[in-house]
Amino acid sequence: MIRHELFLDDFAFEAGGRLDRVNVVYHTSRVQHGRVVWICHALTANSDPEDWWPEMVGPGRFFDTERDFIVCVNMIASPYGSSGPASVNPDTGLPYYFDFPAVTVRDMVAAMAAVRRALSIERVDLLVGSSIGGFQAVEWAVSEPELFDRAAFIATAPRVSPFLSAGIETQRMALEADPTFRQAVDLSGGAAGLRCARAQALISYRCFEGYGLTQAEPDDDTLFAVRAASYERYQGEKLLRRGFDAYSYYYLCNAVDSHNVGRGRGGVAAALGRIRAKTLVASIDTDAIFPPAEIETWAPMIPGAVYKRLTSSFGHDGFLLETKQLTELLEPYLLCK
Amino acid sequence: MIRHELFLDDFAFEAGGRLDRVNVVYHTSRVQHGRVVWICHALTANSDPEDWWPEMVGPGRFFDTERDFIVCVNMIASPYGSSGPASVNPDTGLPYYFDFPAVTVRDMVAAMAAVRRALSIERVDLLVGSSIGGFQAVEWAVSEPELFDRAAFIATAPRVSPFLSAGIETQRMALEADPTFRQAVDLSGGAAGLRCARAQALISYRCFEGYGLTQAEPDDDTLFAVRAASYERYQGEKLLRRGFDAYSYYYLCNAVDSHNVGRGRGGVAAALGRIRAKTLVASIDTDAIFPPAEIETWAPMIPGAVYKRLTSSFGHDGFLLETKQLTELLEPYLLCK
Repeated sequence: MIRHELFLDDFAFEAGGRLDRVNVVYHTSRVQHGRVVWICHALTANSDPEDWWPEMVGPGRFFDTERDFIVCVNMIASPYGSSGPASVNPDTGLPYYFDFPAVTVRDMVAAMAAVRRALSIERVDLLVGSSIGGFQAVEWAVSEPELFDRAAFIATAPRVSPFLSAGIETQRMALEADPTFRQAVDLSGGAAGLRCARAQALISYRCFEGYGLTQAEPDDDTLFAVRAASYERYQGEKLLRRGFDAYSYYYLCNAVDSHNVGRGRGGVAAALGRIRAKTLVASIDTDAIFPPAEIETWAPMIPGAVYKRLTSSFGHDGFLLETKQLTELLEPYLLCK
Repeated sequence: MIRHELFLDDFAFEAGGRLDRVNVVYHTSRVQHGRVVWICHALTANSDPEDWWPEMVGPGRFFDTERDFIVCVNMIASPYGSSGPASVNPDTGLPYYFDFPAVTVRDMVAAMAAVRRALSIERVDLLVGSSIGGFQAVEWAVSEPELFDRAAFIATAPRVSPFLSAGIETQRMALEADPTFRQAVDLSGGAAGLRCARAQALISYRCFEGYGLTQAEPDDDTLFAVRAASYERYQGEKLLRRGFDAYSYYYLCNAVDSHNVGRGRGGVAAALGRIRAKTLVASIDTDAIFPPAEIETWAPMIPGAVYKRLTSSFGHDGFLLETKQLTELLEPYLLCK
């Protein structure tokens, strides 16, 4: 896919604050006249879905980069190109850090909508989002209902839950426990906190069973278990190595807490009732942060929505891993014309 | 209940290291000749079960302090009386901090066994433990099988799981993200890390449903969810206010990682096969760290064990909250003579 950049002038943030210029990085496939497939990415991913969803997106894949016109926009506040706290503040020549305005899911959607207009797309054939990618997708399907033919909301929610919000707060607490975070001397500030936050997040993305399958201690007489612990540290470190910083992470956590499609629209049910896309909602049986029982409460609020449950041993991360099930699920509902 | 203290001379720790003297604090009820009920406490609790299990333990309660001879020993490494990293090192006049020997579940059981001998108890009518209290109980039932008539292991395991170990590591990562932890200037070292670790732990002790029931955001148009976050911070702070320190917490985390009744005994199945107590094993349907499916794999390894599943909206913490179910469960299996 090809990387593009769009500059938005005088961007007003939902929670207050304006910036003279906001950068929005996005990727598109090279085809000119395919079906428009819009993919929204999750918390620490980027605008190149071939990178983070390689089993699903690419030449000859279900989302076929040689057949479909695929678009993916890097979320505002992400460190992967779009403006955020790690971007250079033109007033200081340094990163914005905490001077960047607070970002909400609706700001992310506003940026996607601007890209859509810049590309002169009048109709999106399929909108797909999982996790916080799903937050953006649901929000957009509610705010511009006539734009979408079909939508797939996978392992996500129309509003942040108390359980997810509690997890997000403990991740912020980890960042704050590292004093280099508030010192904000450079973008490595809060690195130890970020490692911990990421390791915590990973636990909520997986589940008991998945850890058992991949991180079981050898059956020996070692005094202290070490394998799962080493995996947690490795995952924390890995996020840093791929260029993530604590400031972007913090802003994205706050954006998670902003998610409520019902805000100013008479509540979640009224908002979901606006959706006009033929919608598929999918849950994952072992997902701790978006459990099926919860998804089953709101999926029926979307007119005509079809609901399916995937099975996975890997919890919420199943949306990245259960390619076969996902394909079988998406095919009949989303790809027939 | 009455608080007692026992001093153990020349205590040898399983993982290496000896101390000339180890203090062991324990509580007993005032009765002299009742049935002996031995209660093992969980991670951040203490040796007074009337304090942390008030619905179950007290005058006229299921564990009746006026009828039963109840014993509970404060775990080594806990800050509530028994020796640990927060105790004064006689060589320096300061807390041990990291100079305290590493502590295992078997060390905790060795201390309980010493109290048992000091009390001249030849037979324990009922051994009860939940969570890491269950770790101690299972370990003891394996290591001294002839001592126990009955045992109840609730929401626990014979070995630390990869999932629990991963959670424990992220809690240690939170302590380490706070540089005052390693500086160890006083027992407030690592306080910010400890708040975060406790908040994380709480998430694993509860579940999606429980947070939804108690921490739901008001249905208004607030931009950012705050209620569950404030609860997390409150719970983190609360642990500090009740005198817990990061050093004790760290040592107890390490002890969790030491738990494996199969170590040196040919594995978990062989070890559990040694148990002679009439055993009741109970799980909680929403328990994320000791899920029923896991407990159902090892409960049958205990000869003649009866297995039951409790229902709760509050995850692992159900063992502290579902008094009625727990009583109904324990009564027929454990209190008939």
